[in-house]
Amino acid sequence: MARLIVFMSDFGLRDPYVVQVKAVVRMICPGAEIVDLTHLIDSFCIECGSYVLDSSVDWFPSETVFLGVVDPGVGSERRPIIIRALSRWFVGPDNGLFTPIFLRDRSARAWVIRPWALPVKEISSTFHGRDIFGPAAALLSCGEEPGRIADEVSIDSLVRTELWWEERRGSSLCMRVIYIDKYGNIVLSRKKPLEMQLGGIINVESPGGLYRAVHVRSFSHVGEGELAIYTNSFGYIEIAVNKGDASKYLGVGVGDEVCLTPQ
Amino acid sequence: MARLIVFMSDFGLRDPYVVQVKAVVRMICPGAEIVDLTHLIDSFCIECGSYVLDSSVDWFPSETVFLGVVDPGVGSERRPIIIRALSRWFVGPDNGLFTPIFLRDRSARAWVIRPWALPVKEISSTFHGRDIFGPAAALLSCGEEPGRIADEVSIDSLVRTELWWEERRGSSLCMRVIYIDKYGNIVLSRKKPLEMQLGGIINVESPGGLYRAVHVRSFSHVGEGELAIYTNSFGYIEIAVNKGDASKYLGVGVGDEVCLTPQ
Amino acid sequence: MARLIVFMSDFGLRDPYVVQVKAVVRMICPGAEIVDLTHLIDSFCIECGSYVLDSSVDWFPSETVFLGVVDPGVGSERRPIIIRALSRWFVGPDNGLFTPIFLRDRSARAWVIRPWALPVKEISSTFHGRDIFGPAAALLSCGEEPGRIADEVSIDSLVRTELWWEERRGSSLCMRVIYIDKYGNIVLSRKKPLEMQLGGIINVESPGGLYRAVHVRSFSHVGEGELAIYTNSFGYIEIAVNKGDASKYLGVGVGDEVCLTPQ
Repeated sequence: MARLIVFMSDFGLRDPYVVQVKAVVRMICPGAEIVDLTHLIDSFCIECGSYVLDSSVDWFPSETVFLGVVDPGVGSERRPIIIRALSRWFVGPDNGLFTPIFLRDRSARAWVIRPWALPVKEISSTFHGRDIFGPAAALLSCGEEPGRIADEVSIDSLVRTELWWEERRGSSLCMRVIYIDKYGNIVLSRKKPLEMQLGGIINVESPGGLYRAVHVRSFSHVGEGELAIYTNSFGYIEIAVNKGDASKYLGVGVGDEVCLTPQ
Repeated sequence: MARLIVFMSDFGLRDPYVVQVKAVVRMICPGAEIVDLTHLIDSFCIECGSYVLDSSVDWFPSETVFLGVVDPGVGSERRPIIIRALSRWFVGPDNGLFTPIFLRDRSARAWVIRPWALPVKEISSTFHGRDIFGPAAALLSCGEEPGRIADEVSIDSLVRTELWWEERRGSSLCMRVIYIDKYGNIVLSRKKPLEMQLGGIINVESPGGLYRAVHVRSFSHVGEGELAIYTNSFGYIEIAVNKGDASKYLGVGVGDEVCLTPQ
Repeated sequence: MARLIVFMSDFGLRDPYVVQVKAVVRMICPGAEIVDLTHLIDSFCIECGSYVLDSSVDWFPSETVFLGVVDPGVGSERRPIIIRALSRWFVGPDNGLFTPIFLRDRSARAWVIRPWALPVKEISSTFHGRDIFGPAAALLSCGEEPGRIADEVSIDSLVRTELWWEERRGSSLCMRVIYIDKYGNIVLSRKKPLEMQLGGIINVESPGGLYRAVHVRSFSHVGEGELAIYTNSFGYIEIAVNKGDASKYLGVGVGDEVCLTPQ
């Protein structure tokens, strides 16, 4: 049976990009089932894609093939890669998108795809999701060995982002905003609980100003309109306003720095 | 064969919520097929969800499992429930979402889910779609008896909304707006034809002012830019502007009261 | 095995339209697999639908059934049709949507659907996707002969749009905008390479003003913020701004005329 393919991109749902990738996968590996992770990653936001992918990987079985296409450098020299990590497969551009995946597995391996080893007639310079990544994912889904279509390289040669960045400054812990969800909740660049007391007050310093929040288990533990900081259901530190939009409240966007100081 | 699961939520299509629910369902009942009803219910709008669900239920076969998650009270005391009605299954929060379902079936039954009877390792306080409702729907899909994971309660104990609300005031019939569709068509809280003459003029009183509409079979029976009132293809009373946006025209939103008076 | 159905519409993803069409297809042809092409075609934009469909058809195998519903004339006299072209099936309204399909196949054939030959109880006047087109596509998917539910007509009797329109005016080539993609790239009404020199400068005349662009292989061959003209990955002439939004830059929308003059 073909391996499940989980497909994430910033293609949007309006143009015929997603469907053409799916059509190519069907052609190359007819039995492959494709689950859409999301195609609404903010255009070109590599760290947004990393966060969404990292949050979802563990929920799928081993041998799943993750096809991840957030690829501002399409047509340039960035390499098309296959990664084996966490007992699963990952296919996409070598631009840091898979950083949280291979950093979580010391025995991760990587290959650079040889485009002309793929069963495609033509490779456009603007749509590698359809012409390179999709075909490679389809072959893996049907059980192909990565060595047949790609050359192994050192995992250390891969581009990596600072998705999990934090810096202590005196009693403050500074992180970056890596994602804003549909409710305006702010996800920070730390994937483990804060070493601060539950129930305690935390001062929040953002580009928009200074705020005070409560360190809680979930946003329903603060009053309406109040700021809460907690570990979200994917393991990341998150700031939310109960029944409100924290990103507007704090005036922050992806990439901004936020510093937390226990009071 | 596993029962079909039809999945509706207000999770949106951008964040990894929908995919994680699907992943959990696959884990618990690998053969389950999931059809997306929609995940773009207006955030927290319980009546919007009720309308969309009620409009679609009859098109799916008996034994279908409807997983409905519009859940502003997640993490609070609201109960997670299973309903058996209309020869189908319904899983979601006890907040009135399923009102039009159990009101249509006098022999409807209900159960309150025991979360710890579910095959999950952890239950977050913010994501019961993944940690409670999804697993329960998956078990039902694979043929589990509701009594194994839930305790039966009286159907009268369920929270209900006034989705089907109307009030006669003299010669007027007043209803509430329960949904606005993508074209701006206004759906009212009545699921049966008006007792008014087809072709007749109806005065429409809304928060935005007074308007006159024609009672027709479909909006194509009035001129461009004119107001039409008719029974929509789901059985509800609807107000539309031919080639226009009725919700803007009348200045109304979900929850507003609208009164109709035949001229 | 049932034939694959590829489903495109302007129904959006929020209202229960798409799901009801899918439910009807399941009822009539239970084994049919449905792939969503997109449901976010700009409302009522027939040429947008033609472009998206034409761009994707060749990626699917012969015998695929394309269900295309962009149907501003629903409820009027426009005919519901089946087309056989390019070794594939097409079902939808006779409003020009399938123009680029039947123009590409000299042996294309067409049938007008007899609604009452379909296995449906009722036919609404506002939702033919569910009540006519979906059922017809389901029957074709399950192997039904078109003659059983439709009457053959001359392909020349079909409504056609001028999707592929161009006009020479002196040294200029004028075309129309037929699509704007999510990045703001502008697709023109020509599906073959320009007969102009690669690397050459082209003057672009649009309703918004006069601009100069470079004729290249892909938008990554011009500097950031610069205008590029090239054949896109679907074979159409496209204007883009590298890392920018060309439709805003040129101030054009679907239907506008754009003239290109080599310098």
